[in-house]
Amino acid sequence: MTETPSPEDEGRQTGSEPGLIDRAVSNLRDIWRGIAGSDTSRREPGALSDVDIKRIREQVLACLDAKGGEASARARAAALGHEYLGLNDEGQQDFLGLLADEFGPMEEEIAGAAERYLTAASENSKYLAEEELREALESPRVRLLTQFNALPEGVKFLVDMRARLLEFAAADPRFFGFLADLKDILRRWFDIGFLELRQITWEAPANLLEKLIAYEAVHAISSWDDLKNRLASDRRCFAYFHPGMPDEPLIFVEVALTNGMADNVGVLLDTGAPAVDPDQADTAIFYSISNAQAGLHGISFGGFLIKRVVDVLVQEVPSLKTFATLSPVPGFKRWVGQQDPETLFTAAETKALFNGNPPGPGLVKLLSSGDWLESLDDAAAKPAFQRILARYLVHGKRESGAALDSVANFHLSNGARLERINWKADLSGKGLRQSAGMMVNYLYKRDSIEANHEAYSESGKVVAGSSVRSLAKKS
Amino acid sequence: MTETPSPEDEGRQTGSEPGLIDRAVSNLRDIWRGIAGSDTSRREPGALSDVDIKRIREQVLACLDAKGGEASARARAAALGHEYLGLNDEGQQDFLGLLADEFGPMEEEIAGAAERYLTAASENSKYLAEEELREALESPRVRLLTQFNALPEGVKFLVDMRARLLEFAAADPRFFGFLADLKDILRRWFDIGFLELRQITWEAPANLLEKLIAYEAVHAISSWDDLKNRLASDRRCFAYFHPGMPDEPLIFVEVALTNGMADNVGVLLDTGAPAVDPDQADTAIFYSISNAQAGLHGISFGGFLIKRVVDVLVQEVPSLKTFATLSPVPGFKRWVGQQDPETLFTAAETKALFNGNPPGPGLVKLLSSGDWLESLDDAAAKPAFQRILARYLVHGKRESGAALDSVANFHLSNGARLERINWKADLSGKGLRQSAGMMVNYLYKRDSIEANHEAYSESGKVVAGSSVRSLAKKS
Amino acid sequence: MTETPSPEDEGRQTGSEPGLIDRAVSNLRDIWRGIAGSDTSRREPGALSDVDIKRIREQVLACLDAKGGEASARARAAALGHEYLGLNDEGQQDFLGLLADEFGPMEEEIAGAAERYLTAASENSKYLAEEELREALESPRVRLLTQFNALPEGVKFLVDMRARLLEFAAADPRFFGFLADLKDILRRWFDIGFLELRQITWEAPANLLEKLIAYEAVHAISSWDDLKNRLASDRRCFAYFHPGMPDEPLIFVEVALTNGMADNVGVLLDTGAPAVDPDQADTAIFYSISNAQAGLHGISFGGFLIKRVVDVLVQEVPSLKTFATLSPVPGFKRWVGQQDPETLFTAAETKALFNGNPPGPGLVKLLSSGDWLESLDDAAAKPAFQRILARYLVHGKRESGAALDSVANFHLSNGARLERINWKADLSGKGLRQSAGMMVNYLYKRDSIEANHEAYSESGKVVAGSSVRSLAKKS
Amino acid sequence: MTETPSPEDEGRQTGSEPGLIDRAVSNLRDIWRGIAGSDTSRREPGALSDVDIKRIREQVLACLDAKGGEASARARAAALGHEYLGLNDEGQQDFLGLLADEFGPMEEEIAGAAERYLTAASENSKYLAEEELREALESPRVRLLTQFNALPEGVKFLVDMRARLLEFAAADPRFFGFLADLKDILRRWFDIGFLELRQITWEAPANLLEKLIAYEAVHAISSWDDLKNRLASDRRCFAYFHPGMPDEPLIFVEVALTNGMADNVGVLLDTGAPAVDPDQADTAIFYSISNAQAGLHGISFGGFLIKRVVDVLVQEVPSLKTFATLSPVPGFKRWVGQQDPETLFTAAETKALFNGNPPGPGLVKLLSSGDWLESLDDAAAKPAFQRILARYLVHGKRESGAALDSVANFHLSNGARLERINWKADLSGKGLRQSAGMMVNYLYKRDSIEANHEAYSESGKVVAGSSVRSLAKKS
Repeated sequence: MTETPSPEDEGRQTGSEPGLIDRAVSNLRDIWRGIAGSDTSRREPGALSDVDIKRIREQVLACLDAKGGEASARARAAALGHEYLGLNDEGQQDFLGLLADEFGPMEEEIAGAAERYLTAASENSKYLAEEELREALESPRVRLLTQFNALPEGVKFLVDMRARLLEFAAADPRFFGFLADLKDILRRWFDIGFLELRQITWEAPANLLEKLIAYEAVHAISSWDDLKNRLASDRRCFAYFHPGMPDEPLIFVEVALTNGMADNVGVLLDTGAPAVDPDQADTAIFYSISNAQAGLHGISFGGFLIKRVVDVLVQEVPSLKTFATLSPVPGFKRWVGQQDPETLFTAAETKALFNGNPPGPGLVKLLSSGDWLESLDDAAAKPAFQRILARYLVHGKRESGAALDSVANFHLSNGARLERINWKADLSGKGLRQSAGMMVNYLYKRDSIEANHEAYSESGKVVAGSSVRSLAKKS
Repeated sequence: MTETPSPEDEGRQTGSEPGLIDRAVSNLRDIWRGIAGSDTSRREPGALSDVDIKRIREQVLACLDAKGGEASARARAAALGHEYLGLNDEGQQDFLGLLADEFGPMEEEIAGAAERYLTAASENSKYLAEEELREALESPRVRLLTQFNALPEGVKFLVDMRARLLEFAAADPRFFGFLADLKDILRRWFDIGFLELRQITWEAPANLLEKLIAYEAVHAISSWDDLKNRLASDRRCFAYFHPGMPDEPLIFVEVALTNGMADNVGVLLDTGAPAVDPDQADTAIFYSISNAQAGLHGISFGGFLIKRVVDVLVQEVPSLKTFATLSPVPGFKRWVGQQDPETLFTAAETKALFNGNPPGPGLVKLLSSGDWLESLDDAAAKPAFQRILARYLVHGKRESGAALDSVANFHLSNGARLERINWKADLSGKGLRQSAGMMVNYLYKRDSIEANHEAYSESGKVVAGSSVRSLAKKS
Repeated sequence: MTETPSPEDEGRQTGSEPGLIDRAVSNLRDIWRGIAGSDTSRREPGALSDVDIKRIREQVLACLDAKGGEASARARAAALGHEYLGLNDEGQQDFLGLLADEFGPMEEEIAGAAERYLTAASENSKYLAEEELREALESPRVRLLTQFNALPEGVKFLVDMRARLLEFAAADPRFFGFLADLKDILRRWFDIGFLELRQITWEAPANLLEKLIAYEAVHAISSWDDLKNRLASDRRCFAYFHPGMPDEPLIFVEVALTNGMADNVGVLLDTGAPAVDPDQADTAIFYSISNAQAGLHGISFGGFLIKRVVDVLVQEVPSLKTFATLSPVPGFKRWVGQQDPETLFTAAETKALFNGNPPGPGLVKLLSSGDWLESLDDAAAKPAFQRILARYLVHGKRESGAALDSVANFHLSNGARLERINWKADLSGKGLRQSAGMMVNYLYKRDSIEANHEAYSESGKVVAGSSVRSLAKKS
Repeated sequence: MTETPSPEDEGRQTGSEPGLIDRAVSNLRDIWRGIAGSDTSRREPGALSDVDIKRIREQVLACLDAKGGEASARARAAALGHEYLGLNDEGQQDFLGLLADEFGPMEEEIAGAAERYLTAASENSKYLAEEELREALESPRVRLLTQFNALPEGVKFLVDMRARLLEFAAADPRFFGFLADLKDILRRWFDIGFLELRQITWEAPANLLEKLIAYEAVHAISSWDDLKNRLASDRRCFAYFHPGMPDEPLIFVEVALTNGMADNVGVLLDTGAPAVDPDQADTAIFYSISNAQAGLHGISFGGFLIKRVVDVLVQEVPSLKTFATLSPVPGFKRWVGQQDPETLFTAAETKALFNGNPPGPGLVKLLSSGDWLESLDDAAAKPAFQRILARYLVHGKRESGAALDSVANFHLSNGARLERINWKADLSGKGLRQSAGMMVNYLYKRDSIEANHEAYSESGKVVAGSSVRSLAKKS
């Protein structure tokens, strides 16, 4: 089965917004300072000394030993977590390195159990060997990590630790096993069944709303007025929350109620535009979906979110007939850069757009400049670029058969249909540079979601609307 | 490390109150009927026919396959869960048998990965083999079980399914692996860090309070007046809850605020007795602790509960100096029956109590009759029985070194001290029959809990107060 | 305009349940003890001594003077309220007597302002005189009573004080002015616009539910099981609450969802009867309405309650077509006793029922005995008594033109239609004695409520269904 | 008794922020549009035509007549309120004029009752006449106004209507009686006992927080960052709320926790300044108090607010020893303008500050310019202006004996002490212009509040600290 991919903000994990995690962690730091009270938290050493490492190793062992009872062990884990939060980047890397190197699965015991499994003479001894295998595979650090959960904000602590590990692991494979352990914990805790869908309105607490501003990853929120406009009477915003971190959205979606399928995000974001009467709206446009927790990368709720929100809206706004996104195409520019410019345009297009001189590698530079739109003839540019985009979306595939474009892959694997390509749909700098100002409507038709998903996940088939199909054929 | 044992109501899991689970399940049945709406739920067949088994097998496979996406798979799991709830005992056993037999870990894949692990030539191939092992050990049914979680009351559904499995497994070892899988899911979900401690007062919802009446396992609650008395101004009641089943207590404790350490539970339960002024109380008596969910047997929160409640009470009632239990001795009678009656009593006692004729096997019968108290001389009986009980509690050990008595084992491993043996402390029929009307105070002193726990868990040492030590020495 | 009368439990105010108010007050006593802490509250003197009266008079004056500021005055009022709650009946009567006698409107000032009003030479001096009149008419005690409101449970304090005054005023007219002052305060505070309609379910707090048991005035609630049945899935219960006393229902109504218009309250109250599927129900039967606060006598919410509940149910249970009551006829027996027995029955009836001997004054005795039903021939009794009841309800009028029967008057002035008379509808002792076991359905048809109300309030016209009209004609 | 005056923002009622009320009303407009649905609300006529007036008169009469029952009358009142909200200023004035002219107290009936009162021959007939007087004095429009309360946002509707009436009454005395009626309703509804004190934090709903921004009347809140700083860990904000308008603060106070008594508001408002550790703070500074509802002018809660907040802070922050304000002196400049400049300064001061030339009427101009501070010698200006301010505050009195300065009057009548005059304490343009940049600390000492209040309210005595007394003496 295809794992459901991440939604539209995939850029977020790549470290483009490092401040985000740091800030969240520093909130935690404030809280934890209160717990243990030791002054060590104020000092922020660099790399840990051997003495520090030794001391931390002993503390970890004391947590795992639990001589004084599980409650005491959890108190010790609190002190350790407190120490971790007081470290700077280098110190945290050393701390996590210790757990990566010394508290992973016990190889000898795995080997012993594996042998007993292979040579088991009876069903019963096989069952026992299986249990031993299972036990040996659970790293000691898994117990330690779980102990952090009893603490205030413990879940957020682990999520942020994983965000940190993801950074370190990008450069150092010794963190892989640790990452896998932590993902295994988190994917069970963050099972969709535990998550709560909540609507976010202008009546929500300010400390929650400011997180939307910080976490919005598709169309940046520029001010509280901008935010208020996205929560107006013709808008809806929904997020998933985990009971263990009730003030932290995990993923959120912004929806506009419109008449007809919106083709321009600038209009939606214009704080001066008049509100649509919700009772008259026939379409719900999902115009922004953002993952909020870097530490939950790869643990996906996006598909559930859209479907649940559709269910909720069907109830609340009976006049709605159409559910669709207005989505960016984040991978377009990169893909264009990898194509032979000569093959992208027809001779007629080359003539109309570039005076007959194929643009060459300069094309990407042109797109990147952001102001290319003015330099090209619109009547000629529109059909040419729409056709090229359709080709990219319909035929651009990874080896696995998935769509090249991450946002396309997200919606197609959720069962959406690639419905329409919109010209001059996002004229912000980012929009111009990323996808020549074009955006895409993915259509969620409730009765074909399952079949679309199946077609896409089994054979990579991109279900597209007739206009897109016709554009793609011309390529 | 010693696993923290269950609290005082251990009798509950043995099936002595089967009605409890059935009722809880039938609540769920009502709810689920609404979900799927099919009429099949009304029919309650006996054992499943081959046709039924075949159909269910296919449904399970469809859930695991998830062709139409994870959201669709969860919808299918709902229908399956619905069908399960519509079955009678025999049908449910067949249903669970199918999962036990056909959806366990994949042996060939485990074997393959085990071999690759043992023969791995590099760190990297070893790591990959380890991941494969881990994956192969996760039974397909684990995914199915997790899917139930997305449903309303899904957590309760799994807890109740485990209660059912525990019943079946008592007679049939083929359910062992399935039980282990389910315990593994539940122990992660029910990590203490996710649980919420809530105080329960007379202001609590009636549908919650009636569950206390149903689940109380130590001193049965006879009426709403009895319950109200246990929630009066000089009482406190606390319970742990899981966010996934917010109306279901997991474990709860009843506390009385008293002057001096209470030695008689009848006084505490007397609805006519005047209330103590909480501001004047110096002692908190934990007089009843009950596990409420049979399906969470072996996943223990009792130790955390008492310590957390002590923390809360220290804050709320600053006059409190002493924290102790008033506990039953459920294993006493059985143990007495296993002793040679001649060795239990001294000659002088035998003379005073039995006219010089050792009671022989009739002793247990005498205790069981419940009205033995009247037939024995009180002045002679009191020291004799207190001494015998002290011997049982201090020296009665299992092979593992743990105390024979389950309640003693629970409190000792939580770090409590065996403080005092109380004569004529529970003159209810149950109290007389179970422990000759005697009860025990276990003392929780905050600054020695950790040391006590360590002494007990490492060497089985029973830390006891001087009066108990002196009684035990005479034996 | 006709003042909306009280609902079905009018017997309540007559002192038939004195324990009710006492208990509520004693709750307040517990609370207030905490406020002032003085030990005087423990002593419960009889009539107040002159010294006490003098002291209280000075305290009242200090509250009214407010030298130290309004906040201090309210603190003094708290101490005074505390003292009042510590008094026994006789003491409270003296206390209230002091306020009745010495802190009423200031006659001289009223007279002065009245003269100035009558002789005012200009619009402006007339306006000023009007203001002076208004001020002079506001008794000093009104300010004192208002000061109690700043205290915890202050609203409930005044409501209970009025209940007490109503008792005293029944025997002593000097309390009339005081009563009027207090009613004036309460009718403004308890304006319908401030009241909150809440549904009460089995999930409600037990301390609220036990008040339903205490306050139910039509069909007594015999146990928690009885109560649970009245909150089952085919039942609804709604109450009005005031934000100043959020745990105290003001008035509540119990509703059964049924198929067809219920004609027997015993069936509704049978805890063993199966629940109706709410989605299949076509009728909502209001089978009990109780005022809960004696101190709010004459401040009526009953008419709003029924209409609001109808609005809520129309939304929640779309299958409902009919909204009707199943109501007692509390005044029937008394009225029968006032009629000439000879005129009640026709000759044929007299023959069939009494062997030709008109029953004479013994009729009321017979009805009062409660077991009369067995002694009469059912086939003959049914049409005769139904006819007599119809005559009572349709033609029995007070001088004001209102219906004699208080429950009839309540529903008719709310715009209901007298729809049906039900034979053997309440075979409880109370039902047999009060109305020969008969009950009445009053029908609330949304589109004729206004017209019915108008017809009744203007000309006393009783709008009745055809069967009742036809019965009434025969009389 | 002195009526407790308004707090520090008295300028608000003068119409200096007309937009405020308009905006609030337009929120209501949105809501009411939903109620009645009629399109008439969209049209915004000017003055009402005779036809409109006639129609509205009939609607009012229909509400008062209540033929169809009280519930129907309230529905009619809703439609009428809806119509009112749809009118523009001129139309609303006509609407309210109709109520002012035609629905006031009934003069003939008052006169009749007054005569009966004066000529009453018995206690009883006097009592009856008194009741008649009371009834006649209650204007018909009072019933209409009360009917609006049953509507959503009905309380806010009346509060806003009174704000509007206050505007109209400033120019037209025919609204006086109407204003008095409405004040009488509101002062009962807004009795302090019904108000809820709530702490407002950064976790509060954004729609509430934006009202703080709008309503702050002392030191304008310039941005959400400014607001967040006022809700930081070393700040507290409290407001009173009425249950009938739960999203609308009535009055709110902003408090800073500081070390020592703050003497400069600029420091407190600096978003870049580091936060004080609340556990180390010894002083709570009330640096802003704002009335939020123009329509509640003259119904005062300010005195209660400060005292209650002191009580709460004493509990929450035990380290606090001092409670004081840092307050503006809004009337200083005006008073200076009314003094003979020659008498204000000593010869030495005149020399040092003005080169020996008394400033003449130019002094006010100088102060008003706002940049005077730079043009005067600081060493000379400070003692001179402090002395003059002390004279103003200690000796400046109205005829009634109350302090001339409204803020001084507010705090003094609450029992505060005029503790200290701070030089260069508010260097904002407003601060410089209003009070030469000076601010005042009023000290709230819990054990002298009552005595201070008494001294001030009885004899106008201004209790001042020694430094202020010494400054005032020099004048």
